[in-house]
Amino acid sequence: MSLTKPYDENNIFAKILRGEAPAHKVYEDEHTFAFMDIMPMAEGHTLVIPREPAVNMFDLSEAAAEAMIRTTRKVAHAVRTTFDPHGVICAQFSGAPAGQTVFHIHFHVIPRWEGVEMNLHARTMQEADILADHASRITGNLA
Amino acid sequence: MSLTKPYDENNIFAKILRGEAPAHKVYEDEHTFAFMDIMPMAEGHTLVIPREPAVNMFDLSEAAAEAMIRTTRKVAHAVRTTFDPHGVICAQFSGAPAGQTVFHIHFHVIPRWEGVEMNLHARTMQEADILADHASRITGNLA
Repeated sequence: MSLTKPYDENNIFAKILRGEAPAHKVYEDEHTFAFMDIMPMAEGHTLVIPREPAVNMFDLSEAAAEAMIRTTRKVAHAVRTTFDPHGVICAQFSGAPAGQTVFHIHFHVIPRWEGVEMNLHARTMQEADILADHASRITGNLA
Repeated sequence: MSLTKPYDENNIFAKILRGEAPAHKVYEDEHTFAFMDIMPMAEGHTLVIPREPAVNMFDLSEAAAEAMIRTTRKVAHAVRTTFDPHGVICAQFSGAPAGQTVFHIHFHVIPRWEGVEMNLHARTMQEADILADHASRITGNLA
């Protein structure tokens, strides 16, 4: 059931893609868009989404999946350069029981540091000026 | 430091790729190989690796990243058909502080069920006959 949810054209990421909702943009191309998570699980937490309207991995085309991993890889490199983490998680959750909260498929890029706990259940909005600064620094480090 | 570890030709996944160590194979093609995690975080936990010898996302080529996501998507579909989970996690950890334990890059495909906790720190080997059965059923459900 969770995995057959129909695509909602008014989900927040659809609105961001249409320019109807703001986002701290890191990168965009013909097929993908990347921006800061406003409730970061760690400093530098960035999201990568396809322009294709897919709910999860099960209605995503192969071409869009390839575009997502190309951008995720590129963004992961820039996030690493920017924040110098000890590790980086690239994760995609399909379905609420897997941790999905917005039903437009997305890859999380999450820096990790030894001895620093991750905010597993981020519920706090990060300040806009901090997110803007992070986005700008990551963009500056894109290859 | 964690992210600049040199590639060890004798890591367990390199041995699996060379046929020097056993694995419950689910799928393989020219660029990738998929098999059951022997210490599953949930029933059906499958791993996808590239044949390219990369430690993590930071020494993986773009072409190998694309091949990995193609296989991950394909395997995720088959895992879903096989186990009918409520959710599926596709996750890749770069560096020990991000959760990486074998230093040949891999994508985890992990089924999730509502109300069923994930074994976050899997340390128990699953029985070989169960893994063989799972692998065979997933293979049978590949598109």
